[in-house]
Amino acid sequence: MSEKQTVRLLDPLFTTDSMREIFSDRRRLQGMLDFEAALARALARAGVAPDASVAPIVAQCSADRFAMDVLAREAALAGNLAIPLVKALTAAVAKSDAQAAGFVHWGATSQDAIDTGLVLQLREALDLLQRELAQFSSPLARVAEKHQSTLLAGRTWLQQASPVTLGLKVAGWLDAIHRHQARLANARREVSTLQFGGAVGTLAALGDKSPAVAAALASELKLQLPSIPWHTHRDRFAEVATRLGLLVGTMGKIARDISLLAQTEVGEVLEPAESGRGGSSTLPHKRNPVGSAVVLAAAIRVPALVSVLLTAMVQEQERGLGGWHAEWETLPEIFLLAAGALAHLTHVVDGLEVFEEHMTHNLGATHGLILSEAVAIALAKHIGRSPAHQLVERAAHRALQSGRPLRDLLLEDQEVRARLSSAEIDGLLDPRNYTGSAASMIQQVLADEKKNR
Amino acid sequence: MSEKQTVRLLDPLFTTDSMREIFSDRRRLQGMLDFEAALARALARAGVAPDASVAPIVAQCSADRFAMDVLAREAALAGNLAIPLVKALTAAVAKSDAQAAGFVHWGATSQDAIDTGLVLQLREALDLLQRELAQFSSPLARVAEKHQSTLLAGRTWLQQASPVTLGLKVAGWLDAIHRHQARLANARREVSTLQFGGAVGTLAALGDKSPAVAAALASELKLQLPSIPWHTHRDRFAEVATRLGLLVGTMGKIARDISLLAQTEVGEVLEPAESGRGGSSTLPHKRNPVGSAVVLAAAIRVPALVSVLLTAMVQEQERGLGGWHAEWETLPEIFLLAAGALAHLTHVVDGLEVFEEHMTHNLGATHGLILSEAVAIALAKHIGRSPAHQLVERAAHRALQSGRPLRDLLLEDQEVRARLSSAEIDGLLDPRNYTGSAASMIQQVLADEKKNR
Amino acid sequence: MSEKQTVRLLDPLFTTDSMREIFSDRRRLQGMLDFEAALARALARAGVAPDASVAPIVAQCSADRFAMDVLAREAALAGNLAIPLVKALTAAVAKSDAQAAGFVHWGATSQDAIDTGLVLQLREALDLLQRELAQFSSPLARVAEKHQSTLLAGRTWLQQASPVTLGLKVAGWLDAIHRHQARLANARREVSTLQFGGAVGTLAALGDKSPAVAAALASELKLQLPSIPWHTHRDRFAEVATRLGLLVGTMGKIARDISLLAQTEVGEVLEPAESGRGGSSTLPHKRNPVGSAVVLAAAIRVPALVSVLLTAMVQEQERGLGGWHAEWETLPEIFLLAAGALAHLTHVVDGLEVFEEHMTHNLGATHGLILSEAVAIALAKHIGRSPAHQLVERAAHRALQSGRPLRDLLLEDQEVRARLSSAEIDGLLDPRNYTGSAASMIQQVLADEKKNR
Amino acid sequence: MSEKQTVRLLDPLFTTDSMREIFSDRRRLQGMLDFEAALARALARAGVAPDASVAPIVAQCSADRFAMDVLAREAALAGNLAIPLVKALTAAVAKSDAQAAGFVHWGATSQDAIDTGLVLQLREALDLLQRELAQFSSPLARVAEKHQSTLLAGRTWLQQASPVTLGLKVAGWLDAIHRHQARLANARREVSTLQFGGAVGTLAALGDKSPAVAAALASELKLQLPSIPWHTHRDRFAEVATRLGLLVGTMGKIARDISLLAQTEVGEVLEPAESGRGGSSTLPHKRNPVGSAVVLAAAIRVPALVSVLLTAMVQEQERGLGGWHAEWETLPEIFLLAAGALAHLTHVVDGLEVFEEHMTHNLGATHGLILSEAVAIALAKHIGRSPAHQLVERAAHRALQSGRPLRDLLLEDQEVRARLSSAEIDGLLDPRNYTGSAASMIQQVLADEKKNR
Repeated sequence: MSEKQTVRLLDPLFTTDSMREIFSDRRRLQGMLDFEAALARALARAGVAPDASVAPIVAQCSADRFAMDVLAREAALAGNLAIPLVKALTAAVAKSDAQAAGFVHWGATSQDAIDTGLVLQLREALDLLQRELAQFSSPLARVAEKHQSTLLAGRTWLQQASPVTLGLKVAGWLDAIHRHQARLANARREVSTLQFGGAVGTLAALGDKSPAVAAALASELKLQLPSIPWHTHRDRFAEVATRLGLLVGTMGKIARDISLLAQTEVGEVLEPAESGRGGSSTLPHKRNPVGSAVVLAAAIRVPALVSVLLTAMVQEQERGLGGWHAEWETLPEIFLLAAGALAHLTHVVDGLEVFEEHMTHNLGATHGLILSEAVAIALAKHIGRSPAHQLVERAAHRALQSGRPLRDLLLEDQEVRARLSSAEIDGLLDPRNYTGSAASMIQQVLADEKKNR
Repeated sequence: MSEKQTVRLLDPLFTTDSMREIFSDRRRLQGMLDFEAALARALARAGVAPDASVAPIVAQCSADRFAMDVLAREAALAGNLAIPLVKALTAAVAKSDAQAAGFVHWGATSQDAIDTGLVLQLREALDLLQRELAQFSSPLARVAEKHQSTLLAGRTWLQQASPVTLGLKVAGWLDAIHRHQARLANARREVSTLQFGGAVGTLAALGDKSPAVAAALASELKLQLPSIPWHTHRDRFAEVATRLGLLVGTMGKIARDISLLAQTEVGEVLEPAESGRGGSSTLPHKRNPVGSAVVLAAAIRVPALVSVLLTAMVQEQERGLGGWHAEWETLPEIFLLAAGALAHLTHVVDGLEVFEEHMTHNLGATHGLILSEAVAIALAKHIGRSPAHQLVERAAHRALQSGRPLRDLLLEDQEVRARLSSAEIDGLLDPRNYTGSAASMIQQVLADEKKNR
Repeated sequence: MSEKQTVRLLDPLFTTDSMREIFSDRRRLQGMLDFEAALARALARAGVAPDASVAPIVAQCSADRFAMDVLAREAALAGNLAIPLVKALTAAVAKSDAQAAGFVHWGATSQDAIDTGLVLQLREALDLLQRELAQFSSPLARVAEKHQSTLLAGRTWLQQASPVTLGLKVAGWLDAIHRHQARLANARREVSTLQFGGAVGTLAALGDKSPAVAAALASELKLQLPSIPWHTHRDRFAEVATRLGLLVGTMGKIARDISLLAQTEVGEVLEPAESGRGGSSTLPHKRNPVGSAVVLAAAIRVPALVSVLLTAMVQEQERGLGGWHAEWETLPEIFLLAAGALAHLTHVVDGLEVFEEHMTHNLGATHGLILSEAVAIALAKHIGRSPAHQLVERAAHRALQSGRPLRDLLLEDQEVRARLSSAEIDGLLDPRNYTGSAASMIQQVLADEKKNR
Repeated sequence: MSEKQTVRLLDPLFTTDSMREIFSDRRRLQGMLDFEAALARALARAGVAPDASVAPIVAQCSADRFAMDVLAREAALAGNLAIPLVKALTAAVAKSDAQAAGFVHWGATSQDAIDTGLVLQLREALDLLQRELAQFSSPLARVAEKHQSTLLAGRTWLQQASPVTLGLKVAGWLDAIHRHQARLANARREVSTLQFGGAVGTLAALGDKSPAVAAALASELKLQLPSIPWHTHRDRFAEVATRLGLLVGTMGKIARDISLLAQTEVGEVLEPAESGRGGSSTLPHKRNPVGSAVVLAAAIRVPALVSVLLTAMVQEQERGLGGWHAEWETLPEIFLLAAGALAHLTHVVDGLEVFEEHMTHNLGATHGLILSEAVAIALAKHIGRSPAHQLVERAAHRALQSGRPLRDLLLEDQEVRARLSSAEIDGLLDPRNYTGSAASMIQQVLADEKKNR
């Protein structure tokens, strides 16, 4: 059972091997077994169990020693995995050391093992995501820097509005990723908290030794010791889910942007070419934005999965009925989808093909109208904002009706010519002159990125 | 690869083997291959392909012939499973018959194979659920009939209100299941519809043969032929999801009822006892309502999954980007959870232990107050509704304050005694006399059940 | 209080006056009062109450007679609106006829009034939606017919794939609307069901008269009489929500299509121009797709609201605690959003500006590659599918690299020229010759539409 | 228009007046107008506009000056509120000062006003919630302290498990509230960020003055200045939604606990009595947990609304189409529901009636089995864990079968008697001796609370 999990048909498309490994069945067991091993040590440190009980227990705390299918079937009856696992672990320890077997799971309850085991998985998963986010921010910064002066049409409501730079757009993506890095770091800190309360949260079975055991256990697992057990307070788990939900939302935004820019009629970027990637069996000219599709699929699925964690928070008294169970597959699924989306998106941004000539071409699609605001503002300095706006609007409508360039109509307009020279008009209609603070905004985000490292 | 899928740790708890089989990777491939085989036959029937091309293609259309892990990896690049599958199928056919290979997938697009393949899986899954619903309605009807006169407290807002019968409660459950049976039958009919449109829905590659091929293909697969391809109109798939969402909601309601009745302090029912089921490793007196927990978990998860299908309906132009992909794992997951919940709930209802003595005992918990409405109505016939209500309310408040039975306070009240004899009061305070139309309502639902068979 | 409800700032953007009227506070009260009035009549018909009690009760059953703000404040304490309303109604009747007042709400419970009142609102709202769907299908059919031969690029994964016709696209929209019309008709039938069960669903307060009263009440309100009360079985309400969720999903798909076609770089359609509509304060050239934005917003919000109804189905015993309450604002909100989306979309489709010249222009964007499938199929008839595909692929790649038209490269290719004449190649590269069955599919949907009327 | 908003029928039940005020239509306008006023000042500070333009603009920036219904109708055409508002504001300013009118909204875009206006509302709403959370934590701490030794049955899976104290349960609630206080403080900090980017985020219309204007504007509004505008990066708004979602989840858990404890058969607590609160028109003995119902309704609704904000994050390019619009009503709705739930729950906890005698009585419901773990652990010290467990299990099963107290069966058991005296057994079966670290955990949480103040 130590071999890799079986790949399922859609796994490589939607997630990554490394995240699948963390949330594999084996690791789910191992998380619980790590708890049990640490508990054995903590009991000894606190003087509850003899030191001699530690080694025989720890020796058995390896997921590979257990028959996965048997545990699976028994869990269906028991209602959770810890009950059959603890039974099997106890039996395994008893074979080598009957006395030690008596201290297996001592003072703990199923939920302590399951919840803390999941905490251990989550901590690792958050570390993985954090590393991968760092690997994503790097090409983002590179593209933002390289294309800080690359002009393209800014689009609002899917209509061309005013010019932006590709660097500005990508810096906006990167700036959001910076926030997510901070959020994940915070979530890791919050969720790295021991759950240890015994049957109902009092740790009564350990009597007056319970504080010592709890402290030792937290120390063994390098987890925070909470003020009070949190078995039916699931806000830390749900919080992690929300953090990933936010991250996936941002990735969805980026993928939507890329896929829109990659449309045949826009043609400003393409996802990286690769043999077998995004091709079509019948249409030789197609390069489908497969990465964007995967990210967008995650952005549709994850918000609903986050809502499951929030709904599941309503857990009854000292152990939830259904709410607890609803978390077990859902929280891992969120991580799997987030990791898959991040991998695809990193690949896409890292190899993004940029077609500056198409950006330039599209900037001309409105024959100058995309710069009408620039002209209006220049005129306003002479004749006031309202008259200037009306003047440009008049020219713009004529341009739209006639299909002629805005430049020609401005040059023909006596009122305009009274204020602006032909050279000035040309300057105003040059998108390079109308990017405002884009460059300094990009620099600010790149500076943040450097600090972040 | 013909062997059973690997059991995953939580599968037996949350779903069933039979539903897992239908939505296994193997069957996902087989659905697509069934489409390809039927297409080969349809092309021949319509005279597009020679009859001789059919057998070589059909011979390869078996999921076991394909390397799952290779397809999985290639799908991650291609963006869907059909592209590598069609490539592999074509290659396999070519080995035996190069000419036949030329007709593999002829005129079709990836989405035709994927969508129609899923339709075939859904049809089978709906048939399975329908059979299992019939097996659920049977113990429901039995319990409703057996306990048509078993009295227990009706509870509103979790407070005792007025008496009901267990039969009435269970008949309410069964009546809802009847509606779900009709809904699933309807959903099966709607979803059993061929998707076949070629690259963009025109079937242009088949020229004027396309109507004939489409008709033959629908006939081969026993599917409805739609007026127009529906590749980016996903309402039929989403509809199936909503149908299951409704069913799971009802199951959640039933499980909530059972788990509340099974509380230690209520003790009116228990989930069936079974070795290893619902036990606790430390608390020997416990019998945890594991079945209810699983159903309630599904009732938390499935609504969110349904919302995914609805959100995913916004699919772009002639092929969705992300929305389509979001369906592939979500729709099966809904079926898996629904099937698991149904299996648990059927087991629970079938073996439900009923403790009539506790029901009787609990009916006495309010010392007669649960029947105050009955007394008020009897008095109202003599003195009008408002005075009657005030009279009983006064007695009820005294009973609550003093902890004495309502009966005693009624007997002491001169106004009451002027209207009602002691025997009449006893009759009014007997819950058997205050179940209204419960019996005939139960009979009506049982009659519906008989008609249903 | 008979005047129109105050318009709230975002109401005109997101919903319609007519749907707001149906789900106004006044109509919510009136729904409950209609229940109470009908109950008074039913009690008399069944001989439970004297005929003389009917008129005095019915006379007070008008929402305008009640102080909305007082009811609102009392409902916050009582936990529902029916408790203060029934109290106020009883007091009002008592002023004119003390005996009649004794029969107000007789045998019913709060939930009977609230649920049946809502059923009456839903029935009307579904009728309104149905009428508005008919008004939507009419311009859809018109556009589908008018543009049955209007060619544009079919797009998959947001990439140009093969040609389609605008008529085909719109016929696909219309075909989905036909399914929704059938679904809403079905939902109206299902939800038009009386809820009447008294305190716990037994109708015990009515004794042996309860079947007669229930039947008369259903008949008064023209509602179906169910086999058993359904107070904690909310599937009919949740079903209505799912039906609207499906409809909104389809509308979202249509709006997404339109807004993509309306992009500056595509320019194939525009939402209708109208003074003040979709303009920008600074950018004179913009016409924002406001209608599409509103529909897409609904398509994001409604799926989640549907999931609320499904989650809320888990209602306890004989009255839900929280689940019931969660429905009261959510179900109306779904109708309001659906109606708003439908009104915007009808307006958009009805006045849709179509720019055929841009469609033609965009069809040329790939310099013939959009028709490569057509060429490959023609060649396949001579040399087999695989060699044909390779041949075209080779030419296509050359076209992509060189930027030259596919036609030129085909003409230069000796292998191609050996099979196809220059005229044949021109025919194959004419999109008019590659629309497959589009025309007959459109006719089929238009025929469905005619039958539907 | 300065008067209070009209109360809607269900508002007092589901929300609070103070939160309704913050998210009233008037305040929505005022938020945008506060932005415009601050912009006027910032333009002057940066030397873009003359100082004389400030006063005339600021003077008009009062929501009461605008015709709400006109703006509402125009917003339905324009697609957002800012367009008609800026037009009306400009016209109003122009009446008194034509030159100043030219500087209204100068350099800004609709989204700057709408987003920043909403930020101002959110900041205030978070402050309000924070104050109300402080008022909630106070009775929580009081109840936790007062009942630190009040024993009741701990319940897992809705079954009695082991004893806990009421103080421990409430300290668990309070501990979660502490986390939410930290989260809301953090969210307030994050969301208090200026949005100011002009048409596409470059601030091009302000030329080289844009950094100065942006800084002055942030300073005027006491908001953070971001590295880059965030118009299509909605993670800060969505984050606020998730924070409230987490809070509502915890409140739902508390309400579920209370409503379960308040069940007729449990009777351990009741929501506070109040005239008109939770009564039933027909059942005089009922006190419905209205507060819990409202909180539970919010806990069903809010998770779905949070998912809307997450789904809506996928916003296109430089302005979202639909996603942006989906936020406008949803984010306020989350605040309204959270505030209503918090008000109800504070009221409930503050006046919670605790019935210690019922807690004691229920602790005896299992005739000692609730303490079987205590006995097993005591025996284990003599004979090892496994034999001890078996011994107690045997006695427990006998107790269950016979209905006799565990004590009697233990006393009759020779093996037990060989180890434990009768007095020891009595000590073990006394729940006061089996609360573990509950007391010190409570103290820890109360100490946290003191630090928090």
